[in-house]
Amino acid sequence: MTRTLIAHLSPLPDGPVEVAGWVETVRDQKKVQFVILRDETGAVQLVNPATRALELGGEAISGLDRDASAAHRLDERSRDELDAQRAALALTETIGGLAHGTMVRVSGELKHDERVKLGGLEVKIDTLEVVSEALPETPIAEDSSLDKRLDWRFLDLRRPEANLIFRVQTTFEHALRSYFVENEYIEIHTPKLMASASESRAELFELGYFEGTAYLAQSPQFFKQMAQPAGFGKVFEIAPAFRADPSFTSRHATEFTSIDAEISWVRSHEDVMQMHEQALHAAFSAVVEKHGAAIEAAFGVSLEIPALPFPRIPLAEARRIVAEGGYEIPRADGDLDPEGERRLSAWVKANHGHDFVFVTDYDSTIRPFYHMRHEGDASLTNSYDLLFNGVEISTGAQREHRVDVLIEQAREKGLEPEELEFYLDFFRYGVPPHGGFGMGLARVLMLMLGLSSIRETTYLFRGPTRLTP
Amino acid sequence: MTRTLIAHLSPLPDGPVEVAGWVETVRDQKKVQFVILRDETGAVQLVNPATRALELGGEAISGLDRDASAAHRLDERSRDELDAQRAALALTETIGGLAHGTMVRVSGELKHDERVKLGGLEVKIDTLEVVSEALPETPIAEDSSLDKRLDWRFLDLRRPEANLIFRVQTTFEHALRSYFVENEYIEIHTPKLMASASESRAELFELGYFEGTAYLAQSPQFFKQMAQPAGFGKVFEIAPAFRADPSFTSRHATEFTSIDAEISWVRSHEDVMQMHEQALHAAFSAVVEKHGAAIEAAFGVSLEIPALPFPRIPLAEARRIVAEGGYEIPRADGDLDPEGERRLSAWVKANHGHDFVFVTDYDSTIRPFYHMRHEGDASLTNSYDLLFNGVEISTGAQREHRVDVLIEQAREKGLEPEELEFYLDFFRYGVPPHGGFGMGLARVLMLMLGLSSIRETTYLFRGPTRLTP
Repeated sequence: MTRTLIAHLSPLPDGPVEVAGWVETVRDQKKVQFVILRDETGAVQLVNPATRALELGGEAISGLDRDASAAHRLDERSRDELDAQRAALALTETIGGLAHGTMVRVSGELKHDERVKLGGLEVKIDTLEVVSEALPETPIAEDSSLDKRLDWRFLDLRRPEANLIFRVQTTFEHALRSYFVENEYIEIHTPKLMASASESRAELFELGYFEGTAYLAQSPQFFKQMAQPAGFGKVFEIAPAFRADPSFTSRHATEFTSIDAEISWVRSHEDVMQMHEQALHAAFSAVVEKHGAAIEAAFGVSLEIPALPFPRIPLAEARRIVAEGGYEIPRADGDLDPEGERRLSAWVKANHGHDFVFVTDYDSTIRPFYHMRHEGDASLTNSYDLLFNGVEISTGAQREHRVDVLIEQAREKGLEPEELEFYLDFFRYGVPPHGGFGMGLARVLMLMLGLSSIRETTYLFRGPTRLTP
Repeated sequence: MTRTLIAHLSPLPDGPVEVAGWVETVRDQKKVQFVILRDETGAVQLVNPATRALELGGEAISGLDRDASAAHRLDERSRDELDAQRAALALTETIGGLAHGTMVRVSGELKHDERVKLGGLEVKIDTLEVVSEALPETPIAEDSSLDKRLDWRFLDLRRPEANLIFRVQTTFEHALRSYFVENEYIEIHTPKLMASASESRAELFELGYFEGTAYLAQSPQFFKQMAQPAGFGKVFEIAPAFRADPSFTSRHATEFTSIDAEISWVRSHEDVMQMHEQALHAAFSAVVEKHGAAIEAAFGVSLEIPALPFPRIPLAEARRIVAEGGYEIPRADGDLDPEGERRLSAWVKANHGHDFVFVTDYDSTIRPFYHMRHEGDASLTNSYDLLFNGVEISTGAQREHRVDVLIEQAREKGLEPEELEFYLDFFRYGVPPHGGFGMGLARVLMLMLGLSSIRETTYLFRGPTRLTP
């Protein structure tokens, strides 16, 4: 018999089934035992009428199972009955001793019964095989700290809510990729080992590379741009990026999954934003359709498909809105701070009814050298940040593709063009105007599900003091 | 007017269009100029009747364009005609000076014409804007060495064959992922930063990690296995893996894209092979359907959808087959060598008509400690290698899930169980029997397209002496 996933039991008729998973709880009552068995798709109640002692003709007996000669004196029918009772006794004892987490394979009779709260069905156990025993003490409990839970992440992930997070992630990513593939993007895998920094000399991981030195890519920025002179047209990548970032906020990690896209022949960052919002619209639609009800039940979030187009607000206007709301941003560079982002998003929600907002036209001083600047006003860039539920999830821009301007802007930012030669070469043999974005997967999921930290939406979080498990 | 992709021109009626791309060739004849323009989807012929000099009433004139007073003496109609001629002269000169690779945006009149070899259509140029000029000397040519081409990979990738490789990659991956997603796998992103080695202490990249040391993941092995006690059931990942491998073969890289899957409740490696061949069948089907004709045209390969099931041959029998074919494998450990793999694949092709073969039941001595061994014969493992067109592309296995056996096997391989504690913990709180495979993306593509090196099928190759661009 092959295993049936628990979520697939419901449409089956009453009859024999095999299920497999781990023991969530055991309720060992005098006359009956209940086991809640969970697998990757759900939970089901197993039931076993307890056999506490051998009996014959209604009389409890003892010693018989050890006293073979006594058994021999019984007639055949009594012996069969006793064998069955011995098996039932053993099953009862096995169930009574099941530790939380133990993996079992169970054959039994499926029975639909409205009175069973858990899904309206139960499985009466015929056989139960202990496949892998759990140690009796589970090292984490429901009230364990996040840090403790991360120490035992493989147990923490057994929670149905955690399982749901990564099913949502799967649906979200697949819908994003499907949007890209259906629109003729090429999927690229850019190298994470580089000969130089991709973003800045700060927050850079360095490693010995045979006779030399390599760095871990902080983003696929240079290499996804390389696809533009390479004539790939539209590209995307979902892959790890690395930042030796010493901060301990709920939004930062030293390794994170970055969603990147880059497209040719854009006229401005507006073309990038249109592609970006369409991709997100497709991905949110898929998540709402497949997991909307489950997300509501697990996280109390009524997820909506974001309307197109998303609102767009120039940074200067965003600053004015935040200031008029009575908040003075405590930073001098003109950028929004986290509180400013929250307030702007709240204003957008109140005035435009939208959870997303593109903040556009950032000052050149707070953007990297490769962002294109406004024609006629070099103090502003053709760039944007995307905020979702009050937090920045992405940066996008049109790139500067004129090599002389690019070199000038690199110098202005204190970079040595000599170190960037391999990158600057991309712009010397013909390159189309282009732009793109990078977006943090775990942040989107955190904000989508109303969670408080990307540690919850990362399979195995990596931070300054966390490198295990 | 918005840009039309060149591949989308054919169904359009004759009339105005805008195209953009790079100059592949210019044929500058006395009376007419031809430009082959290429974009990410194809190439089209642009045509321009050459204007070599100003003329008025059929008479060539000179000096007039510099001599404004002479122009003033002309009547208005003649002036308009001269302006148009000046523009035509400038266009002719611009086209004559176009360097290979220069990016241009062109508006013109689309005209279908059977006599045009390239797609049966051409665009008569109205305006041509040079968007990004290429340096006049292209650093690589058709006969450049592979190494030289990799130095200028962004130019090398402009070849239509290179573009096709990565479109095939995109289709292949998306079909694989769709197979997994439709079968309810969870997509995971495992960390590439680890506190210990994932496969062996050899070929390990090490880096400073704040106050400590980290290693780059050689494979997602431990972390995809972690999804099993985590109750994820079936998982997959497509992500980079890193090996400090000093070899220079056509099949090895220091960074490569690894396709990994791992599933719960397998009964043996047979369950893994069934999943593996089904996923490949789905992916090859998609590639044949979408790119079969283009692959045939570009690479001369008539790609077939592999029949299910793939042949399975135990390693001991494979050795016998190779020996009977007259080849003595020059290694003592019982494994096949590359020539042995080629000969076995040739035998399978001749006797089973199949390009794939699962070689099964490898000796324990040549398998990692975490492969499960045969019940009753610990000298063999529940494992396999998958060969495709004569080369190994994947290793799969059922994993040992009994922690005491696992510790024993680790010790036997000279590993310190103390160093593996975080991994061994995965097996102490209940773990289902499980198995999976890892497969190199670039190898599959290389063998699928009949290419000679994974350097051709890797976007940016990384090897012991190659870290740029």
